[in-house]
Amino acid sequence: MGPEVQPPALLHRHLSAVEAALRSAVQVLPDPIQRLLQYHLGWVDVSGCPVDGHGGKRLRPMLCLFSTDAVGGSPVAAVPAAAALELVHNFSLIHDDIQDRDRERRHRPTVWAVWGQPAALAAGDAMMVLADLTLLALCQRGFPPAKALRASHVITSGYLEMIEGQYLDMSYEGRFDITTADYLIMVSKKTGALLETATHLGALLGCDDETRVDALRHAGRSLGIAFQVRDDVLGIWGDTAVTGKAAGADIRRRKKSLPIVCALQSAGPAGRARLAALYRQDALSDHDVAEVLGVLETSGAREQAQRLAEEHCAMALEWAWQAALPPWAQAEFRGLVDFMLYRDR
Amino acid sequence: MGPEVQPPALLHRHLSAVEAALRSAVQVLPDPIQRLLQYHLGWVDVSGCPVDGHGGKRLRPMLCLFSTDAVGGSPVAAVPAAAALELVHNFSLIHDDIQDRDRERRHRPTVWAVWGQPAALAAGDAMMVLADLTLLALCQRGFPPAKALRASHVITSGYLEMIEGQYLDMSYEGRFDITTADYLIMVSKKTGALLETATHLGALLGCDDETRVDALRHAGRSLGIAFQVRDDVLGIWGDTAVTGKAAGADIRRRKKSLPIVCALQSAGPAGRARLAALYRQDALSDHDVAEVLGVLETSGAREQAQRLAEEHCAMALEWAWQAALPPWAQAEFRGLVDFMLYRDR
Repeated sequence: MGPEVQPPALLHRHLSAVEAALRSAVQVLPDPIQRLLQYHLGWVDVSGCPVDGHGGKRLRPMLCLFSTDAVGGSPVAAVPAAAALELVHNFSLIHDDIQDRDRERRHRPTVWAVWGQPAALAAGDAMMVLADLTLLALCQRGFPPAKALRASHVITSGYLEMIEGQYLDMSYEGRFDITTADYLIMVSKKTGALLETATHLGALLGCDDETRVDALRHAGRSLGIAFQVRDDVLGIWGDTAVTGKAAGADIRRRKKSLPIVCALQSAGPAGRARLAALYRQDALSDHDVAEVLGVLETSGAREQAQRLAEEHCAMALEWAWQAALPPWAQAEFRGLVDFMLYRDR
Repeated sequence: MGPEVQPPALLHRHLSAVEAALRSAVQVLPDPIQRLLQYHLGWVDVSGCPVDGHGGKRLRPMLCLFSTDAVGGSPVAAVPAAAALELVHNFSLIHDDIQDRDRERRHRPTVWAVWGQPAALAAGDAMMVLADLTLLALCQRGFPPAKALRASHVITSGYLEMIEGQYLDMSYEGRFDITTADYLIMVSKKTGALLETATHLGALLGCDDETRVDALRHAGRSLGIAFQVRDDVLGIWGDTAVTGKAAGADIRRRKKSLPIVCALQSAGPAGRARLAALYRQDALSDHDVAEVLGVLETSGAREQAQRLAEEHCAMALEWAWQAALPPWAQAEFRGLVDFMLYRDR
């Protein structure tokens, strides 16, 4: 699985400030709907009792504040933007789980699985609006209105692209002519757009140097693509106990993740036809899943996917280099990239 | 049904400018998802061919631009805000139809009934983000950034309250202890908040006189409550051919609309028990619907509901008076209120 890699410091440096901002954002909501958001964000269980450790990595806000820091700005002032990003991300997860009918996330039942689809849909909507409201708090942190408006434009464009990516992802279902290029465009939108928004927003709030802002923006997009590719690899070969997903989970759900796309492209006519036939079934048995894994193995899909992740990580590093970050920030960003490439959750 | 009332001029004065803004907003989206929004907004049929007359009243944008006009501002400059309001309203309709499993709206199948729930969910999300993007165009219409940011805050708070209202509405299902006060709080949020946002936003973009802005804001809220109450009356006693809903539609769906709430409060123990028993069934037969209509009739629920609509219309007029509108605007607002009270669609 590659070398064991510890999460880099940038993934926890400003975590408590972001958590505090998220908690106070969610408190704006009335009680019944507030509970659903608190649950999804990992702070309480189904009955509202405090719990720990189900909230996810908070990658987007951490990446945002790292970017502010790295260009010499004040991460404290940028916290509302970081919190808004995490709310956007989590709104999309709540709606995603409804769309994909996924009953489990981070080792717990999903919001719709507990409270039903209509309530979960409303909870996602509320989370999205909270993101907008939270971002507007930038004005109280001393940013001029023009900067706050630009931040608003950046985040709005980012999540529109994310929604387009999710739509594209759904439209790939039932299709067997998807190429790796199609796939990369889709994940560039679905995952890349919001990671780009994180570095873009962070840099924008930290400096006025458009060249550095642009370079960090591109670094975020490349990192996002690499992140999703690695996620796809983990969705098939990840350790169940660690990822919280069933083994071969993405195969069982007949998800067209990258290794499948690679295999469809390179397995040869017979392998391709067999894969398509298996994926056209209503459900896959354990035996079917094993057969798909076999096709992926012989077609070299796993290596091809990991190579794509590495390529996009290399691009992310190149962009970070062009952003002329100070040495500590270069080192931390490299640590993050390594973590992305070899993480197992 | 009361006197025949023509739609007042304020409902169509700036219609073409708003339609143009909506069309160009939707064009930002890529093709597959764009189609769903165009369909919902009433411009095309399921296969994408242009059609006419399925888009709804555009009440919120018209009310917004009327308010700008009425306080002496430039409605042309405020068009992005008006278009954003209509997008917010329509996002909520798309998601509402999913939540309520309604298969028909404005004489046509709903978006989810045609394209499925996951796609409709994404279409609603996209519509919501488009609203944010559209509002940001205020900056290009000469409004200072601080004003645009305030507008952003007003619309965001408005639709958060709307979502809370929808959530409250859902939470009333299966409950038979709802009072008219509970109901009025719910519709104040569900419908009142966005109509308040319309007059608030319009006035805010038209002048700097906080007293007038505040008065128009309250006028919008009262009008919104009256509008929803009238909608509830039409949902039970409206003419099927005109409203596009089945007769007694809201009863058949066991919706807890205002006349039902009134009847539950005033029908006496026997009537209340019978109503609750009927509503607890999984489905209502034609005979059941007729029986519910009978209970509503004898308990005076229809008159009580119409009286509540009239009270809130009277409040709306009082607030409009306090906004010191010019005579033409007073007259038009009165015309709108009459239209609300006696409209049959």
